[in-house]
Amino acid sequence: MIIVMKFDASKEEISNILKEVRKFGFKSNLSRGKEKTIIGLIGNVAAVSTDHFQLFSGVENVLRVSKPFKLASREFSPEKSVVRVNRVSLGGNDVIVMAGPCAVESREQILETALKVKEAGATILRGGAFKPRTSPYSFQGLKEKGLEILAEAKEKTGLSIVTEVMTPEHVPLVGEVADILQIGTRNMQNYALLEAAGKYNKPVLLKRGMMATLEEFLMAAEYILSNGNSNVILCERGIRTFETYTRNTLDLAAVPLLKELSHLPVCVDPSHATGLRSLIAPVSKAAVAVGTDALLIEVHPHPEKALSDGAQSLNLEEFSKFMEELRPVAVAIKRRI
Amino acid sequence: MIIVMKFDASKEEISNILKEVRKFGFKSNLSRGKEKTIIGLIGNVAAVSTDHFQLFSGVENVLRVSKPFKLASREFSPEKSVVRVNRVSLGGNDVIVMAGPCAVESREQILETALKVKEAGATILRGGAFKPRTSPYSFQGLKEKGLEILAEAKEKTGLSIVTEVMTPEHVPLVGEVADILQIGTRNMQNYALLEAAGKYNKPVLLKRGMMATLEEFLMAAEYILSNGNSNVILCERGIRTFETYTRNTLDLAAVPLLKELSHLPVCVDPSHATGLRSLIAPVSKAAVAVGTDALLIEVHPHPEKALSDGAQSLNLEEFSKFMEELRPVAVAIKRRI
Amino acid sequence: MIIVMKFDASKEEISNILKEVRKFGFKSNLSRGKEKTIIGLIGNVAAVSTDHFQLFSGVENVLRVSKPFKLASREFSPEKSVVRVNRVSLGGNDVIVMAGPCAVESREQILETALKVKEAGATILRGGAFKPRTSPYSFQGLKEKGLEILAEAKEKTGLSIVTEVMTPEHVPLVGEVADILQIGTRNMQNYALLEAAGKYNKPVLLKRGMMATLEEFLMAAEYILSNGNSNVILCERGIRTFETYTRNTLDLAAVPLLKELSHLPVCVDPSHATGLRSLIAPVSKAAVAVGTDALLIEVHPHPEKALSDGAQSLNLEEFSKFMEELRPVAVAIKRRI
Amino acid sequence: MIIVMKFDASKEEISNILKEVRKFGFKSNLSRGKEKTIIGLIGNVAAVSTDHFQLFSGVENVLRVSKPFKLASREFSPEKSVVRVNRVSLGGNDVIVMAGPCAVESREQILETALKVKEAGATILRGGAFKPRTSPYSFQGLKEKGLEILAEAKEKTGLSIVTEVMTPEHVPLVGEVADILQIGTRNMQNYALLEAAGKYNKPVLLKRGMMATLEEFLMAAEYILSNGNSNVILCERGIRTFETYTRNTLDLAAVPLLKELSHLPVCVDPSHATGLRSLIAPVSKAAVAVGTDALLIEVHPHPEKALSDGAQSLNLEEFSKFMEELRPVAVAIKRRI
Repeated sequence: MIIVMKFDASKEEISNILKEVRKFGFKSNLSRGKEKTIIGLIGNVAAVSTDHFQLFSGVENVLRVSKPFKLASREFSPEKSVVRVNRVSLGGNDVIVMAGPCAVESREQILETALKVKEAGATILRGGAFKPRTSPYSFQGLKEKGLEILAEAKEKTGLSIVTEVMTPEHVPLVGEVADILQIGTRNMQNYALLEAAGKYNKPVLLKRGMMATLEEFLMAAEYILSNGNSNVILCERGIRTFETYTRNTLDLAAVPLLKELSHLPVCVDPSHATGLRSLIAPVSKAAVAVGTDALLIEVHPHPEKALSDGAQSLNLEEFSKFMEELRPVAVAIKRRI
Repeated sequence: MIIVMKFDASKEEISNILKEVRKFGFKSNLSRGKEKTIIGLIGNVAAVSTDHFQLFSGVENVLRVSKPFKLASREFSPEKSVVRVNRVSLGGNDVIVMAGPCAVESREQILETALKVKEAGATILRGGAFKPRTSPYSFQGLKEKGLEILAEAKEKTGLSIVTEVMTPEHVPLVGEVADILQIGTRNMQNYALLEAAGKYNKPVLLKRGMMATLEEFLMAAEYILSNGNSNVILCERGIRTFETYTRNTLDLAAVPLLKELSHLPVCVDPSHATGLRSLIAPVSKAAVAVGTDALLIEVHPHPEKALSDGAQSLNLEEFSKFMEELRPVAVAIKRRI
Repeated sequence: MIIVMKFDASKEEISNILKEVRKFGFKSNLSRGKEKTIIGLIGNVAAVSTDHFQLFSGVENVLRVSKPFKLASREFSPEKSVVRVNRVSLGGNDVIVMAGPCAVESREQILETALKVKEAGATILRGGAFKPRTSPYSFQGLKEKGLEILAEAKEKTGLSIVTEVMTPEHVPLVGEVADILQIGTRNMQNYALLEAAGKYNKPVLLKRGMMATLEEFLMAAEYILSNGNSNVILCERGIRTFETYTRNTLDLAAVPLLKELSHLPVCVDPSHATGLRSLIAPVSKAAVAVGTDALLIEVHPHPEKALSDGAQSLNLEEFSKFMEELRPVAVAIKRRI
Repeated sequence: MIIVMKFDASKEEISNILKEVRKFGFKSNLSRGKEKTIIGLIGNVAAVSTDHFQLFSGVENVLRVSKPFKLASREFSPEKSVVRVNRVSLGGNDVIVMAGPCAVESREQILETALKVKEAGATILRGGAFKPRTSPYSFQGLKEKGLEILAEAKEKTGLSIVTEVMTPEHVPLVGEVADILQIGTRNMQNYALLEAAGKYNKPVLLKRGMMATLEEFLMAAEYILSNGNSNVILCERGIRTFETYTRNTLDLAAVPLLKELSHLPVCVDPSHATGLRSLIAPVSKAAVAVGTDALLIEVHPHPEKALSDGAQSLNLEEFSKFMEELRPVAVAIKRRI
């Protein structure tokens, strides 16, 4: 941590800071520049807020020079992590495709989708039983009934299941069926939920908050990791910007950047990011080319009848064609789908 | 709801839409323009997603012309709502000041603060017992112990209490002490929490998500209202933008706009919005001038020792001076503090 | 400037940096922390880009600790600047109101507006002769003819004139009539224009780019100041965010912040920021309460007939009432309108 | 254009609107819904501002249903445009790589770079002679001398030249050397410059404003097209968001979307978007996979000595390796580099 003093800071103000630094048990390094005096803190400052020093008289700015995340950081775990979900490895050489409808709507819908996405090459089935919706008047999911349907699809197809959990008390309920617990964008900083998922023994797909910086995203992962669960998959799903043609702005540069900053596997969700069916294929190819370890794709047997997010879903035939187009891109960067 | 067809939409595509509209039991109105054909839907379309029609072949765009919120809307409740909290009315002619530290840290800190902010003219004491923090390694609040301290301060001073609740299962625990339940910016779309607060019989201070549009903000209020609790106070606390000098960008134009769109009282939190102590006084005057019904101000007896957010807290003396400066602004717009 | 080395930076990498620092003639200060080594640069580093050092092997981050603006900075000119425009002083105790239509449309429109806004208390007449428009098919202003009309209004009423200049070669033409040259939000980083205005002997009203940070805004002012013109007025007019109810998001906290960072007078334009007539009065009161030195208000004798921006214009009667409401707010903070 | 009336709009208010619509020579279509009355305008409304009707009493909202751009629109020119630059075609099957330093610094630097990027497969040389810089104290380019150097490089290597023009009066000067005139992100709405480029007979590479919507971007292109120059290349270069790890957020979904909305060729600039050398290769592969027609890559023989933007430049060897890695991705989507 570095404390920049105001250009007219007095000797007493500087000496107050040095005293405070010693109270915390840190060493300090004083550098008098032409215009400013700068104090460097030496010690384990991760737990101290920059706000603390900001407040002292004579201080202009306090800057953190270490990353605040540790367990999620590649500095401390240089090796890439691989998350194993039954027979599938996320973070290895294969690019994993998770596919299925936004919401579980019926037994027929899920079983038909599961068989067809498996045939096309997906290895994980997605589908929401509990649905977070902006409006209290919108369809909120089939809940327990939806979980049962997913369990049946899993048994019949051997596909693993990823599905969303919205509250801490639902973690064991959802975890009984899910092979991967999904935490949605609106819950990225629902700390009680992060802690509950951190204490549960199933991989977690953590979606980036639509207004979260990469640092906040990795700090949210840190909540899960520091509660004992090391199987976290980071999912970029678009951030909110001023642009309104697309639902959100997909931040694909975040994929290689997250892999520099962290050892965790990275997934991309082009369906929610763009909200437009015609963009799913080109954007997914880009996601593979930029290095994602997995894709989360909305597929629905009859998108025009979907109760949620139909406008961004591929139908079963489109999905099959989509997978064919995707494979050569993976090969071009020496990976496999 | 209005459906804009593509300029080259076929007769069949148009007729498909008209059939679908009838299925929902809506009437339609067809308008053939020079370039585009437009279909207006007549009926109660609030529960139908625009996505549904977006998906049909030949459709260019689907626009909603009614607001999706009803109970929160001023169209349907033209009278301003007043939320009563013990002897205080939010939404009336008085501008209410809620003051206190970011976090409850000790009995002494809270009692000293409570006495002094009351003396200066605050009528509600704020202070977090449960604290949402970006880092799992930061101080998370005194929890139950913190609630006890707040209860004591309430008994000793007669001040009402506003304090944050972070999970649905904590609603009754926090509600026993709190006169107003606060729902924080990161939880604005934590629907389980909104529902729990909606079913509980205490006023709710709902903070705008730092990433939320006003429409989403009012839809979050709609979750509380539609669960039976009509005592909601909307709190603007800054939105996230590209500007980094301030912690967030306070959207003061949202205050009169929320009052046009909704009948609910509005509060402003300048402390979290700016993150800078020197801006609290001028920005609070602006908030009063723009028409806020309440202010939420961070006050700490020793900001330099605060465990959280010290940099944006006023000390007790500063708060007293602050209240003095604020009063003439309220008078200038014919209100009172 | 501070260079943070990667936690595994080698001795050689560190020594390379120290060599490079010496090449620039700077001194350095080396601080070896527990995890990171940090190098402080001592000397006049304002002209060196942080990018330069970012590139060296072993470097994690390069941070600037001094502000890059000098002439605009309050550190170096602690006294507030006052810009004099004929009988009016911007930056003194009076809050100055500049009023008039978005665009000059006719002689009658301007003369009628000028007389009435003067009567109501405005001292500067605004009106665009050259209009920047998003669409090439929109009305682009009366140009030279518009300037003539402004000159006549000035002669008849004694009001000073503020009007926009869009290209460097128009500076002398517009400057002949204008008492204040306005540089619009889209031209805030049109450097040729900033330089031309910097070399011309008239005050400049510089609007913040809708995409500009405060630092970039002050750097744009620095372009004008460093070319010799010290009469710059900074105008906050709303920034672009994800919120769409208002045209832009007015950043009122920027007003006191700009006054901390700079000695230059500050103006607020609530008309363009909100785009909604009903918000002009409350937001203007807030702007006065937060400490603005001036307001820029759109007034039109017949807003429903305006060729540009009618939706955000007050009519003459509304403006008169608006001024009445504004005065007590100025008095409440010991200023005058 | 659609006018939505307030739910309590009076008959008179509605009839006023209808009268106004007739004045413009438009037809109208009236639809009385359960809650709202809606008026559709039929006729060529592109030149009428939505603001105009917004202002009338009783109006809630005015929506535009046609795109405001015409010449840039794919609706009116369904065929993809190909821009020819000497022997190179932008918008055809080949993906074109434009490479070179941010700024022209010396004859040696440019000649060495030109030879090497040509060898590696680039067909267009980039390099700025006139440089827009945030600070007036930064290096502003070699100007005329820089153009001479570019002309020499062109002659020696046969590469075409793309270089930035910053003011209308420089268009002929820069156009003498440039094969493509580049208009930078800060000048995207410098209308005088757009008009001058529109009247000049050279292709224009128009960079998206860092805070511009796709609609504004296409409207800026419309300025060039409507002045007679049909050879416009649209360049996505990152937009400004709240994320600070990368310089800007590259909006790759904009590439297929621009191609749906417009017939113009699209280019991607990953260097400015990310600002980080390590991201150039993965992000460029993504840009190719998503369907860009061209890439703009910063290459410098000695990035650590660059006077501008060194941190995001590849060196000559890295660029050569970069081109090798890129080719298979183009092949995977049946294109060629």
